[in-house]
Amino acid sequence: MTSHSPLCLFIRSSGGGLASYSMSSPAPQPDPDRQLPSCERRSYTSPEELTFHTNSPSKANRCSSSKKTRKSPETTNVPLRNSGWCKRERLAAMFCTTKPPGSVSPAKRQINEVKETKTTINCVTFPLPGEGPEQQLLKPNEWSYCDYFWADRKDPQGTTHVTGFEVLLQKQLKGKQLQKEMAEFIHERIKIEEEYAKNLSKLSLSPLAAQEEGTLGEAWTQLKKSLHDEAEVHLKFSNKLHTEVEKPLLTFRGDNFKKDLKKYDHHIADLRKQLASRFASVEKARKALADRQKDLEVKTQQLEIKLSNKTEEDIKKARRKSTQAGDDLMRCLDLYNQTQSKWFEEMVTTSMELEKLEVERVEWIQQHLRQYTTLRHETDMFNQSTVEPVDQLLQNMDPAKDRELWVKENKTGEVRPVDLDI
Amino acid sequence: MTSHSPLCLFIRSSGGGLASYSMSSPAPQPDPDRQLPSCERRSYTSPEELTFHTNSPSKANRCSSSKKTRKSPETTNVPLRNSGWCKRERLAAMFCTTKPPGSVSPAKRQINEVKETKTTINCVTFPLPGEGPEQQLLKPNEWSYCDYFWADRKDPQGTTHVTGFEVLLQKQLKGKQLQKEMAEFIHERIKIEEEYAKNLSKLSLSPLAAQEEGTLGEAWTQLKKSLHDEAEVHLKFSNKLHTEVEKPLLTFRGDNFKKDLKKYDHHIADLRKQLASRFASVEKARKALADRQKDLEVKTQQLEIKLSNKTEEDIKKARRKSTQAGDDLMRCLDLYNQTQSKWFEEMVTTSMELEKLEVERVEWIQQHLRQYTTLRHETDMFNQSTVEPVDQLLQNMDPAKDRELWVKENKTGEVRPVDLDI
Repeated sequence: MTSHSPLCLFIRSSGGGLASYSMSSPAPQPDPDRQLPSCERRSYTSPEELTFHTNSPSKANRCSSSKKTRKSPETTNVPLRNSGWCKRERLAAMFCTTKPPGSVSPAKRQINEVKETKTTINCVTFPLPGEGPEQQLLKPNEWSYCDYFWADRKDPQGTTHVTGFEVLLQKQLKGKQLQKEMAEFIHERIKIEEEYAKNLSKLSLSPLAAQEEGTLGEAWTQLKKSLHDEAEVHLKFSNKLHTEVEKPLLTFRGDNFKKDLKKYDHHIADLRKQLASRFASVEKARKALADRQKDLEVKTQQLEIKLSNKTEEDIKKARRKSTQAGDDLMRCLDLYNQTQSKWFEEMVTTSMELEKLEVERVEWIQQHLRQYTTLRHETDMFNQSTVEPVDQLLQNMDPAKDRELWVKENKTGEVRPVDLDI
Repeated sequence: MTSHSPLCLFIRSSGGGLASYSMSSPAPQPDPDRQLPSCERRSYTSPEELTFHTNSPSKANRCSSSKKTRKSPETTNVPLRNSGWCKRERLAAMFCTTKPPGSVSPAKRQINEVKETKTTINCVTFPLPGEGPEQQLLKPNEWSYCDYFWADRKDPQGTTHVTGFEVLLQKQLKGKQLQKEMAEFIHERIKIEEEYAKNLSKLSLSPLAAQEEGTLGEAWTQLKKSLHDEAEVHLKFSNKLHTEVEKPLLTFRGDNFKKDLKKYDHHIADLRKQLASRFASVEKARKALADRQKDLEVKTQQLEIKLSNKTEEDIKKARRKSTQAGDDLMRCLDLYNQTQSKWFEEMVTTSMELEKLEVERVEWIQQHLRQYTTLRHETDMFNQSTVEPVDQLLQNMDPAKDRELWVKENKTGEVRPVDLDI
């Protein structure tokens, strides 16, 4: 399944699997019913190295691969969606490679040597290291989610595994929690500001030195009042922090977000379950085929040495069953590969979605933290202005004027004493 | 005592009293021993309208006043210090008037009519309203303490009185207390700042959203740290408030100030006590003279109607005693007037001192409250700068870079799945 002519058309109807797709040639014409030439009909070799033919053309009618791989660095394994050419073209636009396709000859149908080139882990099939054509990143230089999360990871705490997709999903859920923690932090700041404002406001009402009079008294009164003005500034700051930073952080991507994530989670998980189920069927069919082939072999041997009175009829029957088992296996394999393709497509689409969500999250937070710093700047500026009137009155202080005012109010008498006489 | 030739010299030796002094003529020549012409020797009229002569020239040898006053608006009653010409000249420089002296004829020595022109209140003697030459302010347009606190004020709470000087003193003591209250206010502000700083510092250590990574994580970490930077700014503010405003307010004019004020208080109070004592002597001598004169009158009448066998000798004795009583009275009067002059001088000097202290107090407070506003300005500016690094990191945020970092750390596998085959 790894070597294909660059001009190889890919036709998909209801079945399908992962195939190679050359980006340098135009998109193939949509003709789902074109029959492949017989050379390209499928054949397969059983693990016991017996080859046999099947009568049923694969539903996919596609180029199949043999176990022996030919490296083809210029072609890229690109998933195509199940639903039609438009999406295929879209994906084509997404996954643009610049390497020219190489020229590879069709795989031989029968090869006596069996070499393991693939491995199936947790029901997902991967090429073994060094086997198969080199895979190019779908989105080179972008560190895109869709390129790095194919395998499952062993859960260090137990015997279960975590899928790559779950890692991506956890990141988004974590992001939601982190945004909540940020909101909490801002909330704590708000409380501190309110406390500060409350204390300043209370102190501004203090009667300390209220008996100071004149221009000094005015300056002092304004100084005390300025604490209240500062309190107002900080209160305003805390209110804006609440409406412009804390609250948005709390409500950004509300409850629906988690639901949407869960939908993604279930959708992908379901596809993996389906895949597991299909893989089980493949294994079961493979075993059944092996049994049937063994039975046929035994019966043929017996005929040759005339050990039993089994007739040719029996052998024909055994051969028929064997062929049916082979057909079953092919069908199961097809279904498995279709399901894997489907899962593959959904993985790409959904991981790209998560990637987008992450970019949005980061940018949104950046924007709101900038709002925080803007409010901080404003606050310091407004705070500075509360000192201005105090400065003004301090500048206007006039001890002479204060004396005049005080003397006018407190004088006891202007008439100076004179000598006493008789 | 109110009408004097502008050229009238004032001579003071060890006695003395309040006299007029013309500021427009040059300071008199210092000749304490010049004897006044006989016309200017003192004579006085007793309350009973008997006139008598005294043999003893007044110690002061000064112009005296009769009970009848002549208004002389151009002359000013100016106190002169007891201790010599230099201070007299100094006071002259202080109390500069611009009105040209008027020309007044010397008072007649004997006037049959007795008109009350003065009143003694709490042992201090004042001209009655409308009587005596108009008094000009010692320091016009300055609302100087030395011009407005001559009389005592009735204590509204009781039957005692409060001297003008005590009002001035209380002002300074009050000032000391107000400065202490200002220090207390600043102290409260310091506590508020420390609380605020403590809260910010504590919050800056919060682990909230610490798991945010990449450039977003860096910006968030710096945002949290900036709270600690703000805390440092406010702590610095509170420390400076303490050393540059609160502490000075507490220590300005330490304990010595109150002691100094008390010294002034006692000094002036002592002079008033002396004055009271001298006044009592005057009253006592006045009464003794009256008794003596009564006795003389009775004896003279008896002689005329030959009612008794009193001889001329007895009458001469009575007359002698009367004359002595008159001398006593004059002496007491002199002492009283000297003491009043002394008190007067000290009042002027000390009230000027208090006035100066008040100006200094107001200016010192102005300076330190300006320090407060300066610190406030600085604080807001430093506070602004704590946001800069946060802004910087927010600007440098890069979702693509963050993805790269995260993917590198968390990827599960780059190898994409391929179709399964047999």
